Amino acid sequence: MTDFAATKAMFHLPEGVIYLDGNSLGPLPRAAPARMDAVMRAEWGEMLITGWNKAGWMAQPVELGDRIARLIGAEAGHVVLGDTLSIKVHQALASALEMVPDRRVILSDSGNFPSDLYMAEGLIGTLDKGLELRVVAPEEVEANITEDVAVLMITEVDYRTGRLHDMARLTRKAHEVGAITVWDLAHTAGATVVDVAGAGADFAVGCTYKYLNGGPGAPAFIYVAPRHADTARPALSGWLGHDAPFAFEQSYRAGPGIERMRVGTPPVLAMAALECALDIWDMTTMAAVRARSIDLTELFIEKIEAACPMLELASPRDPAARGSQVSFRFADGYAAIQALVARGVIGDFRAPDIMRFGFTPLYMDESDVQAAAGIIAEVMQNRLWDAPEYQTRARVT
Amino acid sequence: MTDFAATKAMFHLPEGVIYLDGNSLGPLPRAAPARMDAVMRAEWGEMLITGWNKAGWMAQPVELGDRIARLIGAEAGHVVLGDTLSIKVHQALASALEMVPDRRVILSDSGNFPSDLYMAEGLIGTLDKGLELRVVAPEEVEANITEDVAVLMITEVDYRTGRLHDMARLTRKAHEVGAITVWDLAHTAGATVVDVAGAGADFAVGCTYKYLNGGPGAPAFIYVAPRHADTARPALSGWLGHDAPFAFEQSYRAGPGIERMRVGTPPVLAMAALECALDIWDMTTMAAVRARSIDLTELFIEKIEAACPMLELASPRDPAARGSQVSFRFADGYAAIQALVARGVIGDFRAPDIMRFGFTPLYMDESDVQAAAGIIAEVMQNRLWDAPEYQTRARVT
Repeated sequence: MTDFAATKAMFHLPEGVIYLDGNSLGPLPRAAPARMDAVMRAEWGEMLITGWNKAGWMAQPVELGDRIARLIGAEAGHVVLGDTLSIKVHQALASALEMVPDRRVILSDSGNFPSDLYMAEGLIGTLDKGLELRVVAPEEVEANITEDVAVLMITEVDYRTGRLHDMARLTRKAHEVGAITVWDLAHTAGATVVDVAGAGADFAVGCTYKYLNGGPGAPAFIYVAPRHADTARPALSGWLGHDAPFAFEQSYRAGPGIERMRVGTPPVLAMAALECALDIWDMTTMAAVRARSIDLTELFIEKIEAACPMLELASPRDPAARGSQVSFRFADGYAAIQALVARGVIGDFRAPDIMRFGFTPLYMDESDVQAAAGIIAEVMQNRLWDAPEYQTRARVT
Repeated sequence: MTDFAATKAMFHLPEGVIYLDGNSLGPLPRAAPARMDAVMRAEWGEMLITGWNKAGWMAQPVELGDRIARLIGAEAGHVVLGDTLSIKVHQALASALEMVPDRRVILSDSGNFPSDLYMAEGLIGTLDKGLELRVVAPEEVEANITEDVAVLMITEVDYRTGRLHDMARLTRKAHEVGAITVWDLAHTAGATVVDVAGAGADFAVGCTYKYLNGGPGAPAFIYVAPRHADTARPALSGWLGHDAPFAFEQSYRAGPGIERMRVGTPPVLAMAALECALDIWDMTTMAAVRARSIDLTELFIEKIEAACPMLELASPRDPAARGSQVSFRFADGYAAIQALVARGVIGDFRAPDIMRFGFTPLYMDESDVQAAAGIIAEVMQNRLWDAPEYQTRARVT
């Protein structure tokens, strides 16, 4: 049994705010500023260069990776932190493509986050040998897993609609035709019950600043299945992935297993904040979080549909088929989100017409959902979004 | 005139320590913990997702890049922060190679940091079209700049010996034969007078955790010459390098100029610490720092050579030909460095026999150099390094 009142108390949430955007940037763990202060003063300040060993900085990407492994159903020792999610997509995709050198298609879907598609385009340009990025609608992915597919590269949850792919089913299908899978867990790590080992995923990548609450710009992670871990060629072969980084050899020799997916110097300060978030994750299981997430999203949909007929549900109605977010379509969605933000309900907008709300059981309960639904109903019913100050688009929404 | 007493007072240095390893990890700016606390509590904690605009997080990689531009002689608006140095090497090298598609040689030297060589090997493996990484001795680089060279990829200062390449001369020679240059400034940014614009460098990359004092794992930076900035293809084409990142288009369109070298979400917390370091850099010029650095290294060499005949100078004797470090060869260098660390003089060891000492005028003066030289003389003259506790090698030195 998870004590969700206790986990909620471990986050700082601003006064007067109901935060439904933890799927974009999670809130501050209350313990993080003090932990960061200690890392800065007692480790960086006092240990200086010796902190790499004495404070354990060098080992942290694998140690913290192990704590994330539990949350995504990965085998211990097969997840490592570092870089950004886009870089990790490149790493996984580059290694995966080399496992099927005679094929030319990367299959993805239009619900994948654009950066994943862009990184694939970039790699295709670098390789310059006629690879094709084939982007289909989310519901057409399965039918398009054909024998010409080299790599199936999918984000498990559609960042717009919250639609959840069946990782086990698609991975099985991909393997049947001899394709390799790269799963992006950006919207499922910390949100749903992910089981990369059970599903047989080849590679998985994700970020830690959304549901995992690691802070703005927190590092990404990568999982490589044990059967590939010692054979995957690291395309980004940086010194910390070398078998003996401090021997300063002139030629690269890949380190054992997941270590080879390390690239450069680890982001020590960012890891200090993430560690505090993972301490909170240690208090629960994904099964408990997922059950509560479904309760919260079901309640939200019920309340909004009852009060706001102008909002069209864009997320799957079946909770088993959606992640931990609920999206509605509304032509003036941008302005509506601004009006909500002005009233303390933080959701976000995704072009062209998606109003998106994330549900995060670690720091959100039924009373928050009830209160948010009430404010949304007030804004929508009274057209409060239809004011000039909500129409101007800022660069980031 | 720089007030170096004032800059020194702005760093925290541990009691009883003389820190000659700022060329590996710079010390803590005293202002950094409070600044970090404010970013965590007032920005991440209170603004949450709105911090990307309200707190200016999204613009910081370019704003801080501009402050670094001044220190490396770059044109304003042509440096951007992000990722690690190894990733930035990959970015620069991948773009550079595409500018000379008919050539097959990447020329580097054995004084380049191994990770740069490893990243080149990794990219060559990815490209899989018979490129060659040609590694020559540092003093043979110029003679090897021949018409088959696609890219000259050099770290300006040799991390082992401190030997300084002539960037302007080698760049001119490279351009004469039609090659593109990628300069790694890891050991020169904040250490010597770098002039990437004056030298005509095509690409330059560097890190911010050494002489720039940004903290462990602080982000790297990349410079692209204005003449290439709008045409270089970004191989790592992440969403933040897109011309309209928040339009979430399905195809990549490179952003203007240096913006296209952004990849993923910026490391907000790491940038907070770096910002405090750059505030100190704003108090000086590289000309002033370099003049003082030469005074300090000359004094150090004089004192050590007078007292420690068993140490063989590995750095160039001509100060104009070396960076801001002094290295000595000594067969038992590993143990000697451990013995010095135990006595508060922090230098570092680089295999097989290099004892390396960095000089950092922002927080080091003549009295520090005198004191360090005295302790080194005591350790060497009395063979204090020859004790069992100094022989065991830890993973990081």
